[in-house]
Amino acid sequence: MTRLAPHPDRLLPSDPAAREIARTLFKEVVEAPIYSPHGHVEAALLFENSLFPDPAALLITQDHYVTRLLHSAGISMDQLGVNTPDADPRQIWRRFCERWHLFLGTPVRYWFESEFSEVFGLEEHPTAQNADALYDQLASTLAREEFRPRSLFERFNIAVLATTDDPADDLSTHRALAEDPTFSGRVLPTFRADKYMDPAGAKWVVKLEALTEVSGIDCGSYRGLLDALRLRRRYFIEHGSTTSDSGVPDAWAEPLADADAERLHAVGLAGTISADEAVAYRRNMLYQFAAMSADDGLVMQLHPSVLRNHHRPTFDAFGPDTGHDLPDIAAFTRPLERVLNDFGTHPVFRLVLFTVDETAFSREIAPLAGFYPSVYVGAPWWFIDTPAAIGRFRAAATDSAGFYKTSGFIDDTRAFCSIPARHDMSRRADAAFLANLVVTHQISEADALTVARDLVHKIPVETFRLNG
Amino acid sequence: MTRLAPHPDRLLPSDPAAREIARTLFKEVVEAPIYSPHGHVEAALLFENSLFPDPAALLITQDHYVTRLLHSAGISMDQLGVNTPDADPRQIWRRFCERWHLFLGTPVRYWFESEFSEVFGLEEHPTAQNADALYDQLASTLAREEFRPRSLFERFNIAVLATTDDPADDLSTHRALAEDPTFSGRVLPTFRADKYMDPAGAKWVVKLEALTEVSGIDCGSYRGLLDALRLRRRYFIEHGSTTSDSGVPDAWAEPLADADAERLHAVGLAGTISADEAVAYRRNMLYQFAAMSADDGLVMQLHPSVLRNHHRPTFDAFGPDTGHDLPDIAAFTRPLERVLNDFGTHPVFRLVLFTVDETAFSREIAPLAGFYPSVYVGAPWWFIDTPAAIGRFRAAATDSAGFYKTSGFIDDTRAFCSIPARHDMSRRADAAFLANLVVTHQISEADALTVARDLVHKIPVETFRLNG
Amino acid sequence: MTRLAPHPDRLLPSDPAAREIARTLFKEVVEAPIYSPHGHVEAALLFENSLFPDPAALLITQDHYVTRLLHSAGISMDQLGVNTPDADPRQIWRRFCERWHLFLGTPVRYWFESEFSEVFGLEEHPTAQNADALYDQLASTLAREEFRPRSLFERFNIAVLATTDDPADDLSTHRALAEDPTFSGRVLPTFRADKYMDPAGAKWVVKLEALTEVSGIDCGSYRGLLDALRLRRRYFIEHGSTTSDSGVPDAWAEPLADADAERLHAVGLAGTISADEAVAYRRNMLYQFAAMSADDGLVMQLHPSVLRNHHRPTFDAFGPDTGHDLPDIAAFTRPLERVLNDFGTHPVFRLVLFTVDETAFSREIAPLAGFYPSVYVGAPWWFIDTPAAIGRFRAAATDSAGFYKTSGFIDDTRAFCSIPARHDMSRRADAAFLANLVVTHQISEADALTVARDLVHKIPVETFRLNG
Repeated sequence: MTRLAPHPDRLLPSDPAAREIARTLFKEVVEAPIYSPHGHVEAALLFENSLFPDPAALLITQDHYVTRLLHSAGISMDQLGVNTPDADPRQIWRRFCERWHLFLGTPVRYWFESEFSEVFGLEEHPTAQNADALYDQLASTLAREEFRPRSLFERFNIAVLATTDDPADDLSTHRALAEDPTFSGRVLPTFRADKYMDPAGAKWVVKLEALTEVSGIDCGSYRGLLDALRLRRRYFIEHGSTTSDSGVPDAWAEPLADADAERLHAVGLAGTISADEAVAYRRNMLYQFAAMSADDGLVMQLHPSVLRNHHRPTFDAFGPDTGHDLPDIAAFTRPLERVLNDFGTHPVFRLVLFTVDETAFSREIAPLAGFYPSVYVGAPWWFIDTPAAIGRFRAAATDSAGFYKTSGFIDDTRAFCSIPARHDMSRRADAAFLANLVVTHQISEADALTVARDLVHKIPVETFRLNG
Repeated sequence: MTRLAPHPDRLLPSDPAAREIARTLFKEVVEAPIYSPHGHVEAALLFENSLFPDPAALLITQDHYVTRLLHSAGISMDQLGVNTPDADPRQIWRRFCERWHLFLGTPVRYWFESEFSEVFGLEEHPTAQNADALYDQLASTLAREEFRPRSLFERFNIAVLATTDDPADDLSTHRALAEDPTFSGRVLPTFRADKYMDPAGAKWVVKLEALTEVSGIDCGSYRGLLDALRLRRRYFIEHGSTTSDSGVPDAWAEPLADADAERLHAVGLAGTISADEAVAYRRNMLYQFAAMSADDGLVMQLHPSVLRNHHRPTFDAFGPDTGHDLPDIAAFTRPLERVLNDFGTHPVFRLVLFTVDETAFSREIAPLAGFYPSVYVGAPWWFIDTPAAIGRFRAAATDSAGFYKTSGFIDDTRAFCSIPARHDMSRRADAAFLANLVVTHQISEADALTVARDLVHKIPVETFRLNG
Repeated sequence: MTRLAPHPDRLLPSDPAAREIARTLFKEVVEAPIYSPHGHVEAALLFENSLFPDPAALLITQDHYVTRLLHSAGISMDQLGVNTPDADPRQIWRRFCERWHLFLGTPVRYWFESEFSEVFGLEEHPTAQNADALYDQLASTLAREEFRPRSLFERFNIAVLATTDDPADDLSTHRALAEDPTFSGRVLPTFRADKYMDPAGAKWVVKLEALTEVSGIDCGSYRGLLDALRLRRRYFIEHGSTTSDSGVPDAWAEPLADADAERLHAVGLAGTISADEAVAYRRNMLYQFAAMSADDGLVMQLHPSVLRNHHRPTFDAFGPDTGHDLPDIAAFTRPLERVLNDFGTHPVFRLVLFTVDETAFSREIAPLAGFYPSVYVGAPWWFIDTPAAIGRFRAAATDSAGFYKTSGFIDDTRAFCSIPARHDMSRRADAAFLANLVVTHQISEADALTVARDLVHKIPVETFRLNG
């Protein structure tokens, strides 16, 4: 069977009584605007508003969720066009279509089915036979005016889209977008200073120089770096930013005495810092970021415990973000003890904790969020951003933290056209979870409706301070 | 909707076939007497049999399950009356009622709905509007004779209630209760010697002195302390105790040579013990407690791997048990290797293992209980004492240990009036789990009925040696 | 009720719509031949083709899944006949029958019900009352010609059965079976060299001598050992082997320089190797096995992170494999980094990862298998080879790896007569999982049928290179 027609009740419970309620809940939120407080779409996409390139580049090559699974089936990265500019997009698309069955049961296929059908109007599942026809259909669709990014932004009903940005970014694109009278969408920058935390990192010195340049503060000293970062945070806030983000190897945050941090900064610049010293420097920086958040009110997002670039040969040949970042065991309660002792009840400080190790939801994140007013449970992230895992997350997190200390859904994607499918999935999964609470008489249908509504509006808006 | 009317089928499966069977199973146990072999209600409550104070003190301020979630929403501990004697109880109750929706989906709300309706006869959900009316209704209810603790004890149909007691306690309250011809309930002491295990603890020296006093044995030496503890265990046994309990940072139990333990005892008294030495002393004591259990037959309960008092400022201002004890990663198989090699097949020794890290059920606790005759799987505890987690626990533990090496339900509460609601939840959750095994033809309905009955009577009675 | 009649729909979902689909899926695979690519049945069983001994020896004494649970209820190993040749089998059988309820809800009972009914034709559940009658019925059944192993092999419809074999084994039994014109089954050896990895192990020196003898290569040196192992792998391949297996304390694989390994080999022979050195030697060997797999194409199975022989007194009295091997926390992503950097995209190398710690599925194994073409997700193993855990495994693994990077079911059993029941369980559990995806409209019924079929044929055949 090749007919592609995502079912209107997909992901809703099969039990008829529960499905009926889930339908009611989902109907209430299906049209709600999308709040996307964390992701990797770039502002330039919307500013430039160019037509998308070919289907393979848009849907496959640039999405490591897709390329990793094809790679796992023996298709090499260059055959998928990754960092291989002269690869034939039609060939890439064929390779994908021939292996469509490999995605069965995965969230990638689930999103694609929605996206192919509802965004691009495809009516058949990809197969080896129809690959060329689908390619042609997609290519001609992408050439239409209404498939420019800004039109899709409107059609997707995106209320807020947060990008991820370097502190040295001058945010001119964000400003231009905000000032453009022909575009009314809110596209907010996010302050992500990971590369400034690691004096052993390849780009640290270059980054300091760029930051010195843009801030006018000499980042040759630790004190200078902190001052420059504080200044840039203000600049981001002036440009609409409400959040920072940190993607770190672990969640440990431990302050150093100023003199010690200054010394490590110097040996970092000298290129002689040891691995242990670099870790101490990074953990101090994470603590300092928390202190800054308590001061300026940027909501601190924490995405720790991913092992980056596991397969060195792929990294060397094709660069980062090529599908071999892998989950690590996550911990929060001990690593964040110092931060939470100092800022956990601070009226301004706010911390949203994300994990790719789902054991942390019931053991660490939800219990922390169920005591500390500043802590929120981040939605399931990356490998666990799936229908089944969302259900497990709700079951685990609600026990200790309820619904109102969770963050609302985060799509975290660089695949712009998958945004509606991902939020749709989340809304269905939450409707299913709530419906099961209703049919087992744990909450009333009226309460479930309120929660469903709040999960897509009030909760993300308040968690990420999007009211501004 | 504000009408409060817990559904008679709550927590039972929504699938009609499964629900019908679950109803039959639940009906079989709904009236069964309550065995509560571990909890934190004090014997004095029943001895004194005073009227309960105001609703806020009874239902909110003293229950850290409740205050922590309100605290996580930004209500400070003093606004909740925690260690704040002059706080206005009506104000506290209002704060709670205004935030009733924060508890949606949590076990706390689930218990409250049962308790409010079935114990106190409330007919409306709390709201900002009805807060004062509900307060008045509760206050006048609590003033009635039939709401004295002993009347409730009978009404709750409690067969056995175990308290948690210091080894230096003279158990006069327990004795007085037992000898009181007007009270027929069984209220049993539990031997909990945590504070005697930690020579770095603030109260260790004071505790040793108290124990010396009550036992007549000089606890200035390690040998003396062991002898005194053994004597007090006998005393507890003479007063009806069948169990000991240990709440420890981890489950490691490693014997020291007597001379080494004696030396650590001395440096402990001198106030010069190091952190590592204190850990070694504590782990040796846990081993010694196991040896004592093998000797005198007190069932050893182990509640490890909780990080206590995570937020120092709250601890300093409001004391312990204020909602920021947090789960730690738990381990049992390696930590208990020495104890189980020495006593694991001992005919008298018995060990019930509890966890707040649910990954331990399938990986450690159930496999241990599925081999060692002395080991039992403790019911889900604290953060995971919830309808959803009970289902996960049963699924995880039954595979390796069946039903008959689990402990039966433990309420572990200091909220006396929540005891029936908690046991009711457990019975429903077990009925649901069993019904699902029946409708998927994994066990027969007759077998499910036997198991359901055994889970509330035979299993706790035998596990905790309550036949006495 | 004592009538034993496993329900034709057992394990299928209770929801009528889902059950109907699950029935269709299961019907499609119920008669499919069994591929058993990893287990502990010995080739001699089929070669000798003797009648099975008494029911107790066949069903209880030799199956540590069974004895461990009876032991946990206080029946000693000698009462179960373990390493106790003069134990009365009828008595053993009675002890089992009296405690049949202890197995309720466990996979052991689930398998027994199928096996008792479908293999042996029992029509009553075991009870204290019918124990002798059942014993007599089983004993007379086992005396019939059609219950010889080869007849059962055919009746069970086993397409491939892999054994587990020592590298020094001359495989004469396998060869004789393969050459026997009266037996057409495929019984393949598996190369398992654990005992050659551990120079601190009691049998290492003896094993080296045996390997020297059979290979004609002096294993007194590290280089000699590697050469001998390579030669024996070739020999195994010539005798039909397609896989190796390693059961190791952890998954760490770290190469040593040849000179270092040679030195450790020498101190191992001298009996002076330290614990740390032995670990380094073992981890290097695991790396070398991976290198060999990349060279000769034996599929590398890895079964790490089990704590063996936890209860020393039982080990001393009754030997290994007596029910107290216990799961340890498992890790793969960091431990295998070096192996996967060197061979992860190698066209010949293949690695199937098994775990008894189910948190590893979503956090480590499936993410690895979803990137590395060489890595496959092994089916749930041992303690988690159960209906409930199979469902959790599918939910966890499919998200990141789909269905086509999982291994297909592995029975891993030494209980020959339980093989059909175990594969039947797996097929039902997968049918249930797939049916739930269908009724929630995540995949089509046609796709589910294809996956169900592939899971029992194409997937194991391709994963383990059984096409040969």
